[in-house]
Amino acid sequence: MAEKRIGQRSWAFERGVAVLGAAAVAGPKEGKGQLKDMLDQVYPDLYCGQDTWEKAERKMMEDVVNHATKKAGKKTDQIDMFLAGDLLNQNISASFAARTHQIPLMGMFGACSASMLTLTTGAVLVEGGFCDTVVSAVSSHNATAERQYRYPTEYGGQKPDTAQWTVTGAGAGLIGLGGKGPLIRYATIGKVVDMGLKNPFDMGSAMAPAAAETIQAHFEDTGLAPDDYDLIVTGDLAKVGHPITADLLAEKGYDLGERFQDCGLMIFQPDQQAFAGGSGCASSAIVTYGRIIKEMMDGKLNRVMVVATGALMNPVSYQQGESIPCIAHAVTLEGRGNG
Amino acid sequence: MAEKRIGQRSWAFERGVAVLGAAAVAGPKEGKGQLKDMLDQVYPDLYCGQDTWEKAERKMMEDVVNHATKKAGKKTDQIDMFLAGDLLNQNISASFAARTHQIPLMGMFGACSASMLTLTTGAVLVEGGFCDTVVSAVSSHNATAERQYRYPTEYGGQKPDTAQWTVTGAGAGLIGLGGKGPLIRYATIGKVVDMGLKNPFDMGSAMAPAAAETIQAHFEDTGLAPDDYDLIVTGDLAKVGHPITADLLAEKGYDLGERFQDCGLMIFQPDQQAFAGGSGCASSAIVTYGRIIKEMMDGKLNRVMVVATGALMNPVSYQQGESIPCIAHAVTLEGRGNG
Repeated sequence: MAEKRIGQRSWAFERGVAVLGAAAVAGPKEGKGQLKDMLDQVYPDLYCGQDTWEKAERKMMEDVVNHATKKAGKKTDQIDMFLAGDLLNQNISASFAARTHQIPLMGMFGACSASMLTLTTGAVLVEGGFCDTVVSAVSSHNATAERQYRYPTEYGGQKPDTAQWTVTGAGAGLIGLGGKGPLIRYATIGKVVDMGLKNPFDMGSAMAPAAAETIQAHFEDTGLAPDDYDLIVTGDLAKVGHPITADLLAEKGYDLGERFQDCGLMIFQPDQQAFAGGSGCASSAIVTYGRIIKEMMDGKLNRVMVVATGALMNPVSYQQGESIPCIAHAVTLEGRGNG
Repeated sequence: MAEKRIGQRSWAFERGVAVLGAAAVAGPKEGKGQLKDMLDQVYPDLYCGQDTWEKAERKMMEDVVNHATKKAGKKTDQIDMFLAGDLLNQNISASFAARTHQIPLMGMFGACSASMLTLTTGAVLVEGGFCDTVVSAVSSHNATAERQYRYPTEYGGQKPDTAQWTVTGAGAGLIGLGGKGPLIRYATIGKVVDMGLKNPFDMGSAMAPAAAETIQAHFEDTGLAPDDYDLIVTGDLAKVGHPITADLLAEKGYDLGERFQDCGLMIFQPDQQAFAGGSGCASSAIVTYGRIIKEMMDGKLNRVMVVATGALMNPVSYQQGESIPCIAHAVTLEGRGNG
């Protein structure tokens, strides 16, 4: 059997692959939220100094890679590979950012799960001896996502409370051996789970079973239990989806308790209108790269699992009456002792 | 330095990672072309038995995975990972096919370069000990691509001779150790190259510099020369782009001669209207998985480099006046002696 694999579909990283530097940037609304003191850059408006929202989305990715690289004490020409994804058609934020940075690009797609898909792939490349230093990056933007997936914002369409607010932001991690940041210890790649849900204004419910499935697979593969974790955090299930995942896991005998949280509920303040909570690639990315890694380096958290969730539909598949295929990729981070 | 890396950005695979099984399927027009006796399945019409073209595109991917798996003497539940990409918004062909096959999914995006991006990533996972058996798969469909990138086909828009014909088809490779198929020996991951071209009806010219850049990097990294290859084949540069790449390489001192071909010119017959030639993920995929691997197993070819080219724009980036970022990923296949 493949020597890095444990169980059915998890990987153990044993060479000391670590997050050498991590950064998070975000838009103005996110900048007033729970993460306001943890962001490396907050943009004053949704244009981020660009003339279109799409350009703003890639600008955030370019900027966050610069921040993460600098925090790792590196320069971008020392990075062997750019692993990136976003929510836009044909992954244009990642591709245009890779054009700017001139780092070889492996484009990845996992919708909002791209944050942990790119981080996992980065760990694979370093653990396997293919790269010395790689960067994983994702971005999302509220206005580009609305245009892409739903309606132009100018239309002013109403939304139900089950809808989520796509986070405007980007996160990046420099991955390599050494450093002082958290180790990347395990990853569990998701299978597509589709329970037949079709409502694009309730992505949390659609994604909840995929999150539960990956978390269960992770426990079975690694032999770890909920108590082994200080924090288990899903990507963007928000108020509606997150309790469903907790219930599904409880039915399987896994009681995650208070340590089970959701990034989509850790971004906005209660008085900020975000419907059921945050979503988008940047939801799990800015919480992981902006807050969790800091708290691990400060010794407040030791072992954390980030379970990034993704809804893999597009507007055409929805219009053709299809349900929403979902996926979740999990990564386990471990602190380096007393930080 | 990372032990699997050679030079700046190439990888050497030394454990005997091989293509255990390969398959190609295609639409009716492709089924009458140069590959007609090399395809595992030809569909009688563009619907492939489905009620939409988008569903047809994913059906081809599902089918080709089944063919490749069977030819490798495996079953889909023995496959550890599904590495897949396509041209549709949010990679829906890959995601829905992964839902059907229930294999863990790492979604990848490289536009038409996804064929070699997924094959390379598969080789990385096996070489690095992360997986025993993986499948790489891509698909494209003429009518879904027209709808996605250009105009609905019903509109009957005219095209210039520099335009290309998106190939309807899918290709897949089972990757693992052992078997009798070609070894995957080297890979060179591309950087984004953008020379400022903006014409979506001339993708070949836009992608040509990216192909030249990756081929040159491959030679510099590996120390191999054009004479070391029986065949060097680009993905979908077609009549306009392919000679540009040859010229750019000649300027750098690399004369590729007659061994330098293009998959986009190896699919349709001269009397089939395909403008400058074939394009799409399936262009390099059906030529590689349908023809090249067969010819390698028959001993007709020994060392082959496939340089899959991709144009990383989307309609919004084009409408916003931006040029076309391009990329090329190269994989070197080697025969196993007398086959």
